[in-house]
Amino acid sequence: MTVLEREIHEQPEALARLIQHGRSLAEDLAARIASFAPSGVVIAARGSSDNAARYAQYLFGAHNRLVVALATPSLFTLYQSPPSLAGKLVIGISQSGRSPDIVAVIAEARRQGALTVALTNAIESPLAQAAEHVFPLHAGEERAIAATKTYTAELVALAMLSAALEGEPARWDALAAVPGAVQRAIELNLPVRELVNRFRYARHFAVIGRGFNYATAFEIALKMKETSYVIAEPYSSADFLHGPIAVIDEGFPVVAIAPSGKVLADMTSLIDVLDQRRAELIVISDRQDLLGRARAPLPLPASVPEWLSPVTAAVPGQLWAHALAVTRGLDPDRPRGLRKVTETL
Amino acid sequence: MTVLEREIHEQPEALARLIQHGRSLAEDLAARIASFAPSGVVIAARGSSDNAARYAQYLFGAHNRLVVALATPSLFTLYQSPPSLAGKLVIGISQSGRSPDIVAVIAEARRQGALTVALTNAIESPLAQAAEHVFPLHAGEERAIAATKTYTAELVALAMLSAALEGEPARWDALAAVPGAVQRAIELNLPVRELVNRFRYARHFAVIGRGFNYATAFEIALKMKETSYVIAEPYSSADFLHGPIAVIDEGFPVVAIAPSGKVLADMTSLIDVLDQRRAELIVISDRQDLLGRARAPLPLPASVPEWLSPVTAAVPGQLWAHALAVTRGLDPDRPRGLRKVTETL
Repeated sequence: MTVLEREIHEQPEALARLIQHGRSLAEDLAARIASFAPSGVVIAARGSSDNAARYAQYLFGAHNRLVVALATPSLFTLYQSPPSLAGKLVIGISQSGRSPDIVAVIAEARRQGALTVALTNAIESPLAQAAEHVFPLHAGEERAIAATKTYTAELVALAMLSAALEGEPARWDALAAVPGAVQRAIELNLPVRELVNRFRYARHFAVIGRGFNYATAFEIALKMKETSYVIAEPYSSADFLHGPIAVIDEGFPVVAIAPSGKVLADMTSLIDVLDQRRAELIVISDRQDLLGRARAPLPLPASVPEWLSPVTAAVPGQLWAHALAVTRGLDPDRPRGLRKVTETL
Repeated sequence: MTVLEREIHEQPEALARLIQHGRSLAEDLAARIASFAPSGVVIAARGSSDNAARYAQYLFGAHNRLVVALATPSLFTLYQSPPSLAGKLVIGISQSGRSPDIVAVIAEARRQGALTVALTNAIESPLAQAAEHVFPLHAGEERAIAATKTYTAELVALAMLSAALEGEPARWDALAAVPGAVQRAIELNLPVRELVNRFRYARHFAVIGRGFNYATAFEIALKMKETSYVIAEPYSSADFLHGPIAVIDEGFPVVAIAPSGKVLADMTSLIDVLDQRRAELIVISDRQDLLGRARAPLPLPASVPEWLSPVTAAVPGQLWAHALAVTRGLDPDRPRGLRKVTETL
């Protein structure tokens, strides 16, 4: 087993630990946020953590009525003209807590009187020190360069914050079922090793999701780029129709993320269009009808509500990216030109 | 001449018209915005207009201290759980003003008491009717499916709003020089037809910009996809180092947008890394030293301030995308599978 594979398999346990140890902190933080009554949320993050931030846009928007902006770190570093952050909740998300630009956003936000929170796996990191509040990911050390267990931990930590802010007990019940569902997603997708063979020589992929799973499209595309050096571009189904669909011709491989929920009809229509263009479909879904239309069906466990489906839907994508790297004779633990901590200004 | 080419060449005149006819409206709108004192800005847009929204994130952030969030239209349509928009400035940007999801965001924002503005080329459109205020683009009818003159008009309209909000006369002087600089950018890049030949069989490109020109990277990538069906993926230089750089190997074509300004050092470092990996560089810059390192140098006129450089930097990208399509034997006016108005929910 590679380190990456081992960390993929550690996710059920890591998430169970996070939910167990993090709940009271999430509730304390939610109380603080509620009394602060932010006029909006700004999230600073890079790489996989930025994909978790994309999830937060839908999560906090749909469940907590909060507008979430993704920070533009260069305004804080290169331009040194930060926007006004007073009255906002500003969250920094970083596995290592060591990207200087993300730390700079949080430090400036705190200086301006924003409410600052660090979501990180490294509670002694510069990011953790810069923020007023720290929400630890409890994921254990992550050694693979491609983030997996810290990504799903970031999603779950955000979901816990959202649930605590809403104060709706049913959401905690749904969260409690997540580690088991992630375990099931791993088991359901062990055949990925055979399915991926056909794509040994594919050089480019489109990865499409929408709403809550827009983030999943970005994350799966990033995993494929990091481990297999293929060109994998993420899209929302709506943006895709506004131009990029022109690139799709016969045999173009497309990963479609289509779990049950409010965007299912939209994704199904898109799959119809892709079918007409004779794209090669890799479908991530809990729906047998959609899986049946795929060249490579990647099944999801049923009974995960849509707002938590990005956690389970990431898993077949991780296994897919890993298997694709192995099929291509690459070492998923040693992506060329990448280090675990990328320090950008 | 194709329709697309003609519309590229119409830009100096269209922008001069916009600046002349739009200034007093921009100043009235700015006064209204100032008295409204929004707690943040939300922008709803798709396709090229969404790239203009990305520009606004840096523009309003750096010059007006406003945090700008890009709207998540599916929260308003598919999920029917919109976030709270009271107290916000909500801008819809759409050439045609006819995408139902963008109209839905503006209608809901207005219902909630937000200050709403439509930036559109179609002043009778549903979007214009939904918004409290309309800022017309004055671009004249756009017939090519790939947006060019309406894109730069959207950038300039946003820049006029930002200048009016700041109330700094020097910014209007800089704006007045834009039509001439765009004309010069067109003239400087007529040799693109020869330069593009080498890339006749390239299937994929990376397009990289940062800060103000992060938007330009998205827009040039979109033009290339729409007209040439190549895979062209946009990145910020910082995000690129957080994973995607792994895909770059010898001969990989990369478009680097590197005008003078605060991000120049960062882009220059990236060009060093790309050189080490023996990527094929297509450089958009006003700097002779950087142009001299490119396989395909796409020059920009000097003396455009960085905050307006996305307007001039888009132009060589438009000409590049057009020339690439022609070299590949494609009709830039008839991209397969695209229509001028894309209606998404």
